[in-house]
Amino acid sequence: MRLSKGEAKFLRSLQQKKIRDREKKFVIEGWRALGEALHAAAAIEYVALSPGDLAEGWAELVQELQRLGVPVKETDDATLAKVTSTVQPQGVLALVAQRAFAPCDLLSERATLLVAADAVADPGNVGTLLRTCDWFGADGVLLGRGSAELYNEKVVRSSVGSLLHLPVAEDVDLAAALGEARRRGFMVVAASANAQQSYLTARYSTKNLLVLGSEAHGLSGEVRAAADVVVGIPRYGRVESLNVGVACGILLAHLRSRRPG
Amino acid sequence: MRLSKGEAKFLRSLQQKKIRDREKKFVIEGWRALGEALHAAAAIEYVALSPGDLAEGWAELVQELQRLGVPVKETDDATLAKVTSTVQPQGVLALVAQRAFAPCDLLSERATLLVAADAVADPGNVGTLLRTCDWFGADGVLLGRGSAELYNEKVVRSSVGSLLHLPVAEDVDLAAALGEARRRGFMVVAASANAQQSYLTARYSTKNLLVLGSEAHGLSGEVRAAADVVVGIPRYGRVESLNVGVACGILLAHLRSRRPG
Repeated sequence: MRLSKGEAKFLRSLQQKKIRDREKKFVIEGWRALGEALHAAAAIEYVALSPGDLAEGWAELVQELQRLGVPVKETDDATLAKVTSTVQPQGVLALVAQRAFAPCDLLSERATLLVAADAVADPGNVGTLLRTCDWFGADGVLLGRGSAELYNEKVVRSSVGSLLHLPVAEDVDLAAALGEARRRGFMVVAASANAQQSYLTARYSTKNLLVLGSEAHGLSGEVRAAADVVVGIPRYGRVESLNVGVACGILLAHLRSRRPG
Repeated sequence: MRLSKGEAKFLRSLQQKKIRDREKKFVIEGWRALGEALHAAAAIEYVALSPGDLAEGWAELVQELQRLGVPVKETDDATLAKVTSTVQPQGVLALVAQRAFAPCDLLSERATLLVAADAVADPGNVGTLLRTCDWFGADGVLLGRGSAELYNEKVVRSSVGSLLHLPVAEDVDLAAALGEARRRGFMVVAASANAQQSYLTARYSTKNLLVLGSEAHGLSGEVRAAADVVVGIPRYGRVESLNVGVACGILLAHLRSRRPG
């Protein structure tokens, strides 16, 4: 089966946010991301690949797709390059259905670890944040208003598939969501570069919601007011701030290391 | 004083690595980076700014430059946009002399915490790594061969000034440097996504050199062989790896939290 011109045009149109929003679909690129999508049982509509690029080790992925009944459409490198904005096209892409979660879906009874981002605008940072939350087994992520769009190409690329299996709510009113989280028994832990309290000495709960501020503006006043505790990471050097994904990793690693098991 | 056409042309030429290598100079952009450069007593040759962009709070920075005798040259937004590759020019840039460190400069007697990167090719990741090392007060960073070039624009941007005060050795033969580090009393701690030993239970020394692998290939065999211990960060979720800057932050935070003071 070959990828049609109309399909190529549609894939290309998904570079625009308004089309993605309307169609509720997005494109993932590369064999690794495709593997993650299969692993996460993502709703893959079809896969388009350039047979010349079928590198060793990926043939079985194609067999797996065929076994699952996912259409695999052949095309060429030039077409793949045209439908994506990647500088180095990776020989394969897939059309995938977006998933949508509301904050209340994430604030469930069995959730014990959630992360919220307060206006993290850089797509690469949101991607790294999602990947880090995935690694540490967070139950979900709340992206507050002003954060990068979840299905932005750069977020998709830098999250390395994490947005396929991690429940994420977008465009969240954080002040309202944090209030709801507290009512549902979560301790709201906000991170700030200039907090008095170190994350190492703070006390946490068994259900924690970690909030990270934007790099440019830190935590908003509303979020700070809704937090049970504001913690910082002690600084030993001179730079003014840590990357938000790095801060997230340090805090999640600490929360995980405190737990039995 | 106005920025001349010749100067603008020279600044623009520094986007090319071969010119940077020959001239041993590079360009930093933005008020924040300029503030960091002053703070770090970097060798600033001159500053070029667009007077219309002189945002509140930065006027005193200009006074400080004048007090230090650093030439401040006026130009316009169009010229600033032409000499840099930034999408959103920030109204100011500075021409700064590169610094050069050899591995033996970093492996000094008083150094207790060093970080090495084994072929970390992504410039944004190298920048985040430097910023993280700076935050945790590392005594220096060794960039192994195959890592992104230190004065690459993206590294400069994402390191947020850290490359101005953190000693960094480039293009390092890591196998040789790690051997030398061990002879000088450093414990070589390598991080790997598939290590048996958790960083939480490993024993460390008072002088540690942390080595991080490339995202694509992990640690090279040579580096693994030169390590005293290989540690991993326990995973609770599904994604295959952590961003290298995030891993660095988690490990440095742990090394710092173990120390008295």
